[in-house]
Amino acid sequence: MKLWGGRFEGGISEKMDRFNASLPFDINLLEYDIEGSLAHVKMLGREGIISESEAEKIILGLKELKAELLEELEKDKLDLSQAEDIHSLVEMRLTEKIGAVAGKLHTGRSRNDQVALDMRLYLRDQTADIKALIKAFMKVLLELAGEHTETVMPGYTHLQRAQALTFGHHLLAYYFKLKRDYERFEDAEKRINVSPLGSGALAGSSFKLDREFTAKELGFARACENSLDGVSDRDFVLEFLAVASNLMLHLSRLSEEIILWNAAEFSFIELADQYTTGSSIMPQKKNPDLAELVRGKSGRVIGSLNQLMITIKGLPLAYNKDLQEDKEGLFDSVATVKLILELYPEMLKTMKVNKEKMKKAAETGFLNATELADYLAAEGIPFRKAHQIVGKAVLFAAEKDKELEQLNLEDWQSLFSGIIEVDQKKLKEILAVEAAVNSHATKGGPAFKETKRVIAEERSFFDD
Amino acid sequence: MKLWGGRFEGGISEKMDRFNASLPFDINLLEYDIEGSLAHVKMLGREGIISESEAEKIILGLKELKAELLEELEKDKLDLSQAEDIHSLVEMRLTEKIGAVAGKLHTGRSRNDQVALDMRLYLRDQTADIKALIKAFMKVLLELAGEHTETVMPGYTHLQRAQALTFGHHLLAYYFKLKRDYERFEDAEKRINVSPLGSGALAGSSFKLDREFTAKELGFARACENSLDGVSDRDFVLEFLAVASNLMLHLSRLSEEIILWNAAEFSFIELADQYTTGSSIMPQKKNPDLAELVRGKSGRVIGSLNQLMITIKGLPLAYNKDLQEDKEGLFDSVATVKLILELYPEMLKTMKVNKEKMKKAAETGFLNATELADYLAAEGIPFRKAHQIVGKAVLFAAEKDKELEQLNLEDWQSLFSGIIEVDQKKLKEILAVEAAVNSHATKGGPAFKETKRVIAEERSFFDD
Amino acid sequence: MKLWGGRFEGGISEKMDRFNASLPFDINLLEYDIEGSLAHVKMLGREGIISESEAEKIILGLKELKAELLEELEKDKLDLSQAEDIHSLVEMRLTEKIGAVAGKLHTGRSRNDQVALDMRLYLRDQTADIKALIKAFMKVLLELAGEHTETVMPGYTHLQRAQALTFGHHLLAYYFKLKRDYERFEDAEKRINVSPLGSGALAGSSFKLDREFTAKELGFARACENSLDGVSDRDFVLEFLAVASNLMLHLSRLSEEIILWNAAEFSFIELADQYTTGSSIMPQKKNPDLAELVRGKSGRVIGSLNQLMITIKGLPLAYNKDLQEDKEGLFDSVATVKLILELYPEMLKTMKVNKEKMKKAAETGFLNATELADYLAAEGIPFRKAHQIVGKAVLFAAEKDKELEQLNLEDWQSLFSGIIEVDQKKLKEILAVEAAVNSHATKGGPAFKETKRVIAEERSFFDD
Amino acid sequence: MKLWGGRFEGGISEKMDRFNASLPFDINLLEYDIEGSLAHVKMLGREGIISESEAEKIILGLKELKAELLEELEKDKLDLSQAEDIHSLVEMRLTEKIGAVAGKLHTGRSRNDQVALDMRLYLRDQTADIKALIKAFMKVLLELAGEHTETVMPGYTHLQRAQALTFGHHLLAYYFKLKRDYERFEDAEKRINVSPLGSGALAGSSFKLDREFTAKELGFARACENSLDGVSDRDFVLEFLAVASNLMLHLSRLSEEIILWNAAEFSFIELADQYTTGSSIMPQKKNPDLAELVRGKSGRVIGSLNQLMITIKGLPLAYNKDLQEDKEGLFDSVATVKLILELYPEMLKTMKVNKEKMKKAAETGFLNATELADYLAAEGIPFRKAHQIVGKAVLFAAEKDKELEQLNLEDWQSLFSGIIEVDQKKLKEILAVEAAVNSHATKGGPAFKETKRVIAEERSFFDD
Repeated sequence: MKLWGGRFEGGISEKMDRFNASLPFDINLLEYDIEGSLAHVKMLGREGIISESEAEKIILGLKELKAELLEELEKDKLDLSQAEDIHSLVEMRLTEKIGAVAGKLHTGRSRNDQVALDMRLYLRDQTADIKALIKAFMKVLLELAGEHTETVMPGYTHLQRAQALTFGHHLLAYYFKLKRDYERFEDAEKRINVSPLGSGALAGSSFKLDREFTAKELGFARACENSLDGVSDRDFVLEFLAVASNLMLHLSRLSEEIILWNAAEFSFIELADQYTTGSSIMPQKKNPDLAELVRGKSGRVIGSLNQLMITIKGLPLAYNKDLQEDKEGLFDSVATVKLILELYPEMLKTMKVNKEKMKKAAETGFLNATELADYLAAEGIPFRKAHQIVGKAVLFAAEKDKELEQLNLEDWQSLFSGIIEVDQKKLKEILAVEAAVNSHATKGGPAFKETKRVIAEERSFFDD
Repeated sequence: MKLWGGRFEGGISEKMDRFNASLPFDINLLEYDIEGSLAHVKMLGREGIISESEAEKIILGLKELKAELLEELEKDKLDLSQAEDIHSLVEMRLTEKIGAVAGKLHTGRSRNDQVALDMRLYLRDQTADIKALIKAFMKVLLELAGEHTETVMPGYTHLQRAQALTFGHHLLAYYFKLKRDYERFEDAEKRINVSPLGSGALAGSSFKLDREFTAKELGFARACENSLDGVSDRDFVLEFLAVASNLMLHLSRLSEEIILWNAAEFSFIELADQYTTGSSIMPQKKNPDLAELVRGKSGRVIGSLNQLMITIKGLPLAYNKDLQEDKEGLFDSVATVKLILELYPEMLKTMKVNKEKMKKAAETGFLNATELADYLAAEGIPFRKAHQIVGKAVLFAAEKDKELEQLNLEDWQSLFSGIIEVDQKKLKEILAVEAAVNSHATKGGPAFKETKRVIAEERSFFDD
Repeated sequence: MKLWGGRFEGGISEKMDRFNASLPFDINLLEYDIEGSLAHVKMLGREGIISESEAEKIILGLKELKAELLEELEKDKLDLSQAEDIHSLVEMRLTEKIGAVAGKLHTGRSRNDQVALDMRLYLRDQTADIKALIKAFMKVLLELAGEHTETVMPGYTHLQRAQALTFGHHLLAYYFKLKRDYERFEDAEKRINVSPLGSGALAGSSFKLDREFTAKELGFARACENSLDGVSDRDFVLEFLAVASNLMLHLSRLSEEIILWNAAEFSFIELADQYTTGSSIMPQKKNPDLAELVRGKSGRVIGSLNQLMITIKGLPLAYNKDLQEDKEGLFDSVATVKLILELYPEMLKTMKVNKEKMKKAAETGFLNATELADYLAAEGIPFRKAHQIVGKAVLFAAEKDKELEQLNLEDWQSLFSGIIEVDQKKLKEILAVEAAVNSHATKGGPAFKETKRVIAEERSFFDD
Repeated sequence: MKLWGGRFEGGISEKMDRFNASLPFDINLLEYDIEGSLAHVKMLGREGIISESEAEKIILGLKELKAELLEELEKDKLDLSQAEDIHSLVEMRLTEKIGAVAGKLHTGRSRNDQVALDMRLYLRDQTADIKALIKAFMKVLLELAGEHTETVMPGYTHLQRAQALTFGHHLLAYYFKLKRDYERFEDAEKRINVSPLGSGALAGSSFKLDREFTAKELGFARACENSLDGVSDRDFVLEFLAVASNLMLHLSRLSEEIILWNAAEFSFIELADQYTTGSSIMPQKKNPDLAELVRGKSGRVIGSLNQLMITIKGLPLAYNKDLQEDKEGLFDSVATVKLILELYPEMLKTMKVNKEKMKKAAETGFLNATELADYLAAEGIPFRKAHQIVGKAVLFAAEKDKELEQLNLEDWQSLFSGIIEVDQKKLKEILAVEAAVNSHATKGGPAFKETKRVIAEERSFFDD
């Protein structure tokens, strides 16, 4: 069934029909399409554009139809080849159900504003879901961080052990990254939550549509201020995909770390069986599949963002068929992100943390070199000079295959000769790993107390 | 000059040095780097980490140095090969100026938090500039729209003439697109405006740095809550680039339209000589170079967004050298966007608008078909049926090479036979182009009055 | 059914299982997976790694299974939830059919080399199909160009009418673009057509596998030279996607032109009903949906290329689960490209070409200005000077609202005063549109004869 | 200086001029532009389009100018603000040198075919350079592999130790990846090496240009067959960027491994001081900056590919100003790739390989599990069953904190009970790491002998 055709003498090619059809994917919009129609027809009746009784008939029909279609969809019994898009499917079935009056539903409306509306209703729902999932994820990170405020591990830069910190402190870094993603979704919502309904094909309508009424009815903050903009704009989809891409990038980084930590060489964590898989030929393997897939799928969401940007580039106003390409990548991204947000916290909660391995690694590789430099600087040696002295001490110790804390009095005396007197007790204190971590008590630093303070403060984020 | 090296026995390869050097581009950060250092050293003095007199000496030196370096830079006399990055340049020159005490500036600081700070200060400034430029652009669009609230033109979908609207109404669509871009930059600012200073290399510092003091001193809303996050996060750059890409996409669409309207086939506008160029072989050409370049450069900003996403994907915490790649694409995007925002409004203000051509085009091609369908629907004919009748009328007229308003009584009678009585006066009224536009008086529609209302309302956006 | 598990004590999470499963899409590899297994088992038998009778039993089973599975797939009766991937599906069903001996099929093989093999067999087939489709498309372009070697139209630069040429000449530009795409697919085939079978999980096998035998059996040019490379390489997929993206870009450009030519303002062509659609609210519209969708879908294929590049970036050797993400984008791109290549030539063949409109446009807008400049230059005036004189003539004519050929003797005398004597006959000759086109007889130029020569020569491309 | 302007009454805006100018980057094309002009003017003289003496004068002037300009450029004394592009710079300076006759150089040529020519000459040169650099890189890999054909190390899948192989075998994987990149550049050359000269602005020329002569003169395989295609095509740039992106992806993977191997946790290699840098605050660090930058810069080249694809998408024929955006990303990519190809082999040649660490890692983590499974399979146990038995053996050993080769007779008897008799000697043989590697003697496998065979064979690639 086509919603147009009076003008057409030749039929459409069958292959073309398949190429053109969007129903196989815009079926995702089913309930939103009907929801939008309900508000529209309610307004039409209210404004007297159609009669009250017509409106009631259509509303009743739509409600019944919604239940029927959702059931058919669930039972995989909905034939998606019978219509070209979700709008014609609904209208066709409505006509079958309530007769010709169904044709009045489309009064003062075009598929252009209708699909823009459906997309916004859909995305508003999905964004709410995703925000809730991020929040739950953040909760898991915060709790896990709370369990590990004193679990000392090496911090890395350039994948080189750099300074000691704690696993809790490390997890908090991701907590705050996700918090920004949460805020971005929140900001995106402001621009999603505007109603295009009543924009018509591009120029509004000659019917006296009450656009503020339908906007309010559908829970929108307001109706858009320009009909051309209303049907041509997809920047709310782009913004969503950009925010989702950013989230996926954060998770790609965490995944890289999970994979590293789970490798034999690090052995900082052991992932639970449920979130790993084996090898068909190497029985000893325990592969971090979830983390790998998440890292890989970051490309997928970014690819969809890139795709839509390319599609939209250079399009004249108002609606162009190219915009039909705004859907599949979005639907796929939404499904991908949601499933990942559900799975990931479970993986984190079930992994084993090898505190000993972490601590041992933090004690190896001169991670306390900075502490020594800071100590010298605090004693009045210019930082650059202090830095050089420590550099030599590291070389000296490395050649003896020792860590700094293993150097003896004689060693220190030769290293500090002419610079500062050796205070062995102080040195021992400074070079101990836990002391080093705790001395980093600046705001946001890894000191046990500071991490605990941050966690306590962040708990309020979940109060509501 | 290298800020490290104690540990190193072999020197760095000269080619490697060149490959590694970031000074040729991070020179853009010059004033921000010094600004950040001033706040840091002020805090060091205040906290007694260095003596007051040391702090004063460094502050004085930095202020003098800033003036000197900016002057050298302006006069193209600054040798960028003498240091590997902006931080070492400043430190080297400061040491030349005030001696060894300069080495104390780096106390409790790392290049990792320093560069993150510089980037945020830079981007905060640029975002403010860009917001002001967008606002000025919006003003031009609003004023131009105000001049053309009654300039009738065809509205297009699928690049087919669809319904009549006005040039003012069309321009407003872009006004609102830019307004959302403005809001996105505003939202991005919230996440840019957080201080990473004091995050150290990755784990804060054992010095008692007052991070809230430096944050406040530098005008930040607050200091970040996690040092690892502070040095590893570049999502504020990604967000900026995503927002800028969206802006460029909007401008690519407007540019496509400018190019079309300026083509002989449309002839809706004529661009001023200042914003076009000629051909070296075809003297009659007047090429819309600015619009073409803007359309082309949308790829550039999106490419930079994509580049940084790829670079960041899969990086473990905290700092990795890969992050040095966050700069060139950003600097280029900032410069590109700013220059475009300066030029574009000038092009719009100086173009000639051919109102007659626009109106003539709006009167040709059955753009009033929808009006007829709406009229029939308002008379009680189900919309789908009305649509079919009009489809036939269009075919009928097209075959006679007439527009709908040129059909005679007889024609209408045959077309409406058995459906509705022909009311010629009403038909004439409905099918007239200005009447059609004005009948589209829904919120955000093209009716002259509605467009004027919107413009009047939007003026308040510029009150401050 | 899992192909691993001995090591695992806890089961996999159900959601994780769903996340991990690739069968819903790698079902596309069904016949290739079995084809590869047939060659492998034949070799195992031949080398005595398994007995001849075992090999026969497995071969027979696989052949029967292939028919069964393809039938179930066709009839939509294949349950895709019963296995995690195509390899385990086949093995599970084979075991049901022939018992435990099925387990011997996997001897000396891993899913890593198996999936790499399947992908190559699949892509080799698809590339062959696509090459044939491009060739057929090229044929249509060549024939259509042949019909229009004398159909004069304006050539554009900067979307400004520049010089006259012919529609045939214009179509040939796309013919040659597609020819290069054809060649690139041909080049890509060389790198697709190498067998990874026998690379094992990453390090080959301790069984005496005859890799050259299986390579030959499956029609490959050779077996790859390094097992780690064999399982980790996906650059053959990237190359395919890059070539396909390039093809789509060419088609996006042609589509832009089709959309322009089909617009009322140009009216150079009229698309057939089968390849356009109508509007639900504007009965007069005839939208170039196919061209718009193709333009839009260029983003889709490029997006998939970008996705896979992001996914592969930074992966250590050899196989990582991230590589599972090499499939969906590829399968979608293959399907998209093939359907477009089938539809597009039909659209071209069925469109009406409005020769008069094209010619009329070519005669308007000073497209013969270059001819005049060339004429002056041929008369000995330095080209830059000639160019300036013509520029003034154009301005002069434009102010009188005339074309150059409409200027009279007096006009020319004033314009050429002191430069050259006016030869009206010559001028008339030069400024006539067909003459202008035919004077452009350089190789690859639009002169009727030259275009015919090129077409005649290119016919040989289709001999085989 | 502008090459056009007769038509223009108002001047161009100064800011617009800056926006429009391409000279700051197309100065890269300087020698190619002059080279192309030399061939063109030689042909003009030969064909009598200009006189022989004019041609000689211009040729002499161009040759002198080339030397002058290159010198000014080298000495940083060339003022790039004096012209808008490279073509006008050359013409302006030529006119200063030889007077008005310089104006004849542009006879029968347009900037559209000229810039297309310059780009092809440039890219042909760069591609040749890059091919030579890849070959040299491959040589280093082959030699290094030759030194390490017996250096046993763990092979990884999913970053989990999987099977033992050798460092030489691992390096060969990259050798073959680069070899394919080499071949792709070779294929790309075929499409770069076609002359567009004589295509004019878009429609060839009315002068009798001998396009085959100039093509031959400039070393091209042939002149292009369609003038519109000649000026509108940039797919040779896209192909180059796609091939370069693929190369960068390979290097991003190698870099990831270098970074891992250089980390304390792996300690497989130690990078030389020349290719690492230190930390400003952590003196013990030795950061793999080169590898990190290369990994990061993969985004840069892919970003440029993406940028150009976006820029080209949807452009109508023939030339549009958007195409000016084909240069900066390309020039940057060429410079990036060349510098990396020069540096990377040096880093590899100077790194220390810790054979003991590698071997030790290969002996830990059940990497010989597959050997055991293969052994059981070879004894007639179906592979799936063998796999399960080995899985249990691994669990058994892991619980005892032993490797498989450390299990005793009793252990094996309980594990193999009812399945196969224990042959301790055979087991010992099979489970030894070197034996395991050498048993993998399939083509392309890690066996010492096989790796040596491959290396010997590949040496012939460098014979010429």
